[in-house]
Amino acid sequence: MSLLVVGSVAIDSVETPLGRAADVVGGAATYFALAASFFAPVRMVAAIGDDFPEQALSDLRERGVDLSGVERRPGTTLRWSGRYHEDMNVRDTLALDLGVFAAFQPLLPAAYRDSRFVFLANIDPRLQQAVLEQLPAPGIVGCDTMNHWILESRADLERLLQRVGILVINDEEARLLSGERNVVRAARRILTLGPKTILIKRGEYGVIQFSANSVFAVPAFPLEEVFDPTGAGDVFAGGFMGQLARSGDTSEAGLRRAIVYGSVMASFVVEDFSYRRLQTLTVEKMEQRYRQFVSLTDINGG
Amino acid sequence: MSLLVVGSVAIDSVETPLGRAADVVGGAATYFALAASFFAPVRMVAAIGDDFPEQALSDLRERGVDLSGVERRPGTTLRWSGRYHEDMNVRDTLALDLGVFAAFQPLLPAAYRDSRFVFLANIDPRLQQAVLEQLPAPGIVGCDTMNHWILESRADLERLLQRVGILVINDEEARLLSGERNVVRAARRILTLGPKTILIKRGEYGVIQFSANSVFAVPAFPLEEVFDPTGAGDVFAGGFMGQLARSGDTSEAGLRRAIVYGSVMASFVVEDFSYRRLQTLTVEKMEQRYRQFVSLTDINGG
Repeated sequence: MSLLVVGSVAIDSVETPLGRAADVVGGAATYFALAASFFAPVRMVAAIGDDFPEQALSDLRERGVDLSGVERRPGTTLRWSGRYHEDMNVRDTLALDLGVFAAFQPLLPAAYRDSRFVFLANIDPRLQQAVLEQLPAPGIVGCDTMNHWILESRADLERLLQRVGILVINDEEARLLSGERNVVRAARRILTLGPKTILIKRGEYGVIQFSANSVFAVPAFPLEEVFDPTGAGDVFAGGFMGQLARSGDTSEAGLRRAIVYGSVMASFVVEDFSYRRLQTLTVEKMEQRYRQFVSLTDINGG
Repeated sequence: MSLLVVGSVAIDSVETPLGRAADVVGGAATYFALAASFFAPVRMVAAIGDDFPEQALSDLRERGVDLSGVERRPGTTLRWSGRYHEDMNVRDTLALDLGVFAAFQPLLPAAYRDSRFVFLANIDPRLQQAVLEQLPAPGIVGCDTMNHWILESRADLERLLQRVGILVINDEEARLLSGERNVVRAARRILTLGPKTILIKRGEYGVIQFSANSVFAVPAFPLEEVFDPTGAGDVFAGGFMGQLARSGDTSEAGLRRAIVYGSVMASFVVEDFSYRRLQTLTVEKMEQRYRQFVSLTDINGG
């Protein structure tokens, strides 16, 4: 089943302890769409500027991503530059220029309106809400957010969360949203805000999922070299939602397998800058790492 | 099969964000022995001072721990006081007085010399070596260490590691010992120093095990309240080595199950100060949490 994503598309300049890349394509929607495209047809809603490279659009099209909801507007594409610390769980934003993204108003092509699987990547919660209002029958709604909206647009975010099934955030965001430092308490608190399921991303330590009756935790796939963590969380979400759309299985077991697929996809994207690693990735390699992941976590395995 | 532990016994004063406890019994050997006693007969080698409370010795005896290797010497017991940060993965040592521990020379009672399962808790690597020299046929040798010995007694530690089968350290120690920041590289490097298996403890994020042909990672059991993390690592080691001694199964699958038992025991001890929670714990409760742990990590479960 097809999967709709709305979110940012960006041009990034990134510096990590292992190297740097200037003016490479990034953005949550880009990373999400490319990862999800390994599982299901993806429809994308975003805004880009005059400066956005045609090559990146080709790359997305080549992976079958439907770009009819990507609007090119006069001006510059969102630009972000950041530097990762030696501890790559920590990064500093060096510059941010919203460009055409500042006036982004997501408008869904008519053909997108039957989307059943929807992911609202991190943008203003009012825009996320506006997307939902254009969808007559969204089935599974996943959502990300960030500290800025939690602090500055709390009421809008809380209104939105009542319509969100699966919230995908990182541990810092979970703490800020809940006011609880402990991850279990944070999740319990957030479950009262609407979502039936919370996925808390913990960087190199993996993901923990909470729902009313179940907790599931997986480590991240251990890698000898993390080249660039940019986009890992978005790629995780793309693999996760992609697998849900591919299988149609949103049972607890289906969610768990989808979390592992998300983790697998994230483990690939950090092996190179931007989305390069996803361009050479095959479904076969992906399924192979899925099996490695199962063995990595199997208490009775070995 | 019986399990020998050598290490510190201490009187601790601990402050956590949730409370404080003054002059409570701690020390790696104490925590290890109490946890391991749920699995196998434990033999303990340690030094205590005049001030060590008789009650704690009774508590250990009550759990079947053999104290014939615990030497009471004139002077004071090792005293440690520390304060945990809001982020309980971080703590400051406020005071440390080695007391009789400064002159500790482990001497094994004759009846201990047939021990097949041995755990060398964190003490001077020369003393750890001295213990091994008193054991004609140690089968499985586990070992912990700390930053101080890695920095100050590297040659002694490296000599010891050649005789260690399973090294159990935390992530910071693994980085320091290996000179590698990345956990996979760190483990690969440490495997060249002697141990066949490395367990790296990551606090609230669980444990990751490396051997030549296999990697296994488990999260920590998610708790709503961590009251006092003191001793969690030692209790983990006690549950881990205890389960190996109980089952006699040191295959990869046996190691994995033992890691889960260690994690289960650690998840209990942090629920209260000192070793209090282990005093009320039953084998039934332990096995119940083991099953919860399996379900927590089961990719096809739910």
